[in-house]
Amino acid sequence: MSARRNIEVPDLVAAARAGLEDSRSVRAVARLISLVEEASPRLREVMRALAPYVGHAQVIGITGAPGVGKSTTTNALVRELRAAGRRVAVLAVDPSSPFSGGALLGDRIRMTDHASDPGVFIRSMASRGHLGGLSWSTPQAIRVLDGAGFDVVLVETVGVGQSEVEIAGLADTTLVLLAPGMGDGIQAAKAGILEIGDLYVVNKADRDGAAKVRRDLRSALALAARSEHAWRPPVLMVTAQRHQGLEDLAAEIEEHRAWLEESGALAARRARRAREEVEAIAVAALRSRWELQGRDRLDELASAVATGTMDPYAAADELLG
Amino acid sequence: MSARRNIEVPDLVAAARAGLEDSRSVRAVARLISLVEEASPRLREVMRALAPYVGHAQVIGITGAPGVGKSTTTNALVRELRAAGRRVAVLAVDPSSPFSGGALLGDRIRMTDHASDPGVFIRSMASRGHLGGLSWSTPQAIRVLDGAGFDVVLVETVGVGQSEVEIAGLADTTLVLLAPGMGDGIQAAKAGILEIGDLYVVNKADRDGAAKVRRDLRSALALAARSEHAWRPPVLMVTAQRHQGLEDLAAEIEEHRAWLEESGALAARRARRAREEVEAIAVAALRSRWELQGRDRLDELASAVATGTMDPYAAADELLG
Repeated sequence: MSARRNIEVPDLVAAARAGLEDSRSVRAVARLISLVEEASPRLREVMRALAPYVGHAQVIGITGAPGVGKSTTTNALVRELRAAGRRVAVLAVDPSSPFSGGALLGDRIRMTDHASDPGVFIRSMASRGHLGGLSWSTPQAIRVLDGAGFDVVLVETVGVGQSEVEIAGLADTTLVLLAPGMGDGIQAAKAGILEIGDLYVVNKADRDGAAKVRRDLRSALALAARSEHAWRPPVLMVTAQRHQGLEDLAAEIEEHRAWLEESGALAARRARRAREEVEAIAVAALRSRWELQGRDRLDELASAVATGTMDPYAAADELLG
Repeated sequence: MSARRNIEVPDLVAAARAGLEDSRSVRAVARLISLVEEASPRLREVMRALAPYVGHAQVIGITGAPGVGKSTTTNALVRELRAAGRRVAVLAVDPSSPFSGGALLGDRIRMTDHASDPGVFIRSMASRGHLGGLSWSTPQAIRVLDGAGFDVVLVETVGVGQSEVEIAGLADTTLVLLAPGMGDGIQAAKAGILEIGDLYVVNKADRDGAAKVRRDLRSALALAARSEHAWRPPVLMVTAQRHQGLEDLAAEIEEHRAWLEESGALAARRARRAREEVEAIAVAALRSRWELQGRDRLDELASAVATGTMDPYAAADELLG
């Protein structure tokens, strides 16, 4: 453990960039992601070293309610992308596991199909560290994988609540998965997914009700107010378990990528992602400043607010002032 | 609408505090919560006016996976608390609905049992405004209800992911609900609920498997590492739909409250809640400063990061410096 820690950041970054065929490279990439999870002070140096190499990876978000087959679809998509010769990293983010560190998901999503493929890197990551949220750690992990030279970074999130909205803010292309037999219409409306998908995938397309899911989804999409009107999100039928429909899916992803580039939307999305990342880092820096240097003052203010002698806005002013 | 807006904050606060028997009071409380949802600039004045009156309400968080019967249990608990003569506010927070503003949940959770009871105030609230998260809006809404003179504030959250952890940070007492037939053991471990409950409620206790849920939960709790060892969370059997077990539940809530006061944990929890609230307000203030005054600068920095000419830490330094 201590031997690993002693590796200098420039060496670690060079090793990560050497290509996965080198097993040292896999370990270096894994080590860099761990630095993100730990919110290590060395990240600053890591990101400085990686900066010249970022901006090349295609970032694809995959989200959907539990049970729609996200892991299976991710797995099948990895196979498809590998067949096209692309180096793929998978980041499985589990926001439902703030305490366990995502270990349960980690066990589930082993994706043994790709275990021996040096062109695939798979990592399950706890999303909710003490610095809070997908918004802090995931973009940093994406940055590491991008800088390490992966062509595609697939980010799989358990789609419940806020996480799928956040992933849409991070990804170049967001795939929203649905499946028959899961409440269908309501499931779509409830999660706010109509606003965030670039591509919709009805998985388990061989099951009863899949055509209805597609029909309902198309109707709902036709009615939904979407901010980017230029791209009309397609609805694809996939049976991931039998590897059916993956070729079409990969083709549509390419189509979307081309549209992103031509329309200028790619640059806009990436700038937005970077803006959120910079903000999140700045906020985290401030929080730790308050917590480390101003602990007593913050505690004093909090007590005053808790007992009603001060209101929280006045206290926030004091904290900032 | 504009007529409502013209009411001065001191009048609104006075009306809110007049007691719910007065229908103007109900409207005033609702209006104040709306100011929270809108992140109104007038909140500063509201919180200043309310500060002398806060700190009396008992804040109870209710969380659990979808389907365990949170709304039914909340409903039954309200009935029990009303029978004891307490004024009750219910805040239903729906983190799964960032876009719809919680409207779907609002429809579902009408709780018509209490519609004509002037001692009950029920509000469904969207948790994910542009300022982000339960951590910003929910404590402010609790503050409003506390200042308005409610004896108990029940905060019901859809327990998926981060929200139940956040609610545990906000509430004096956190109830975690489970029910038979929902995956049982895994469901407990996965959501990290073993760490956050002050009271565990097995709802639908009349169904097969309820005793097993209790047994499994007790075993898991015995093994779990908990930070506050002094309180051993009880596991209660409830059938909310038939109003069975509610008396015991209310008694255990009182027991926990007494423990909180005697042990000093109440003051500590409330100071922690206030600290997070102050931090969240300060962070929101900074973000809006950056977004309003420094838009161009932030965009410049974001572009530099997106294109790799700058790393995000250096950009964050510039933003803060």
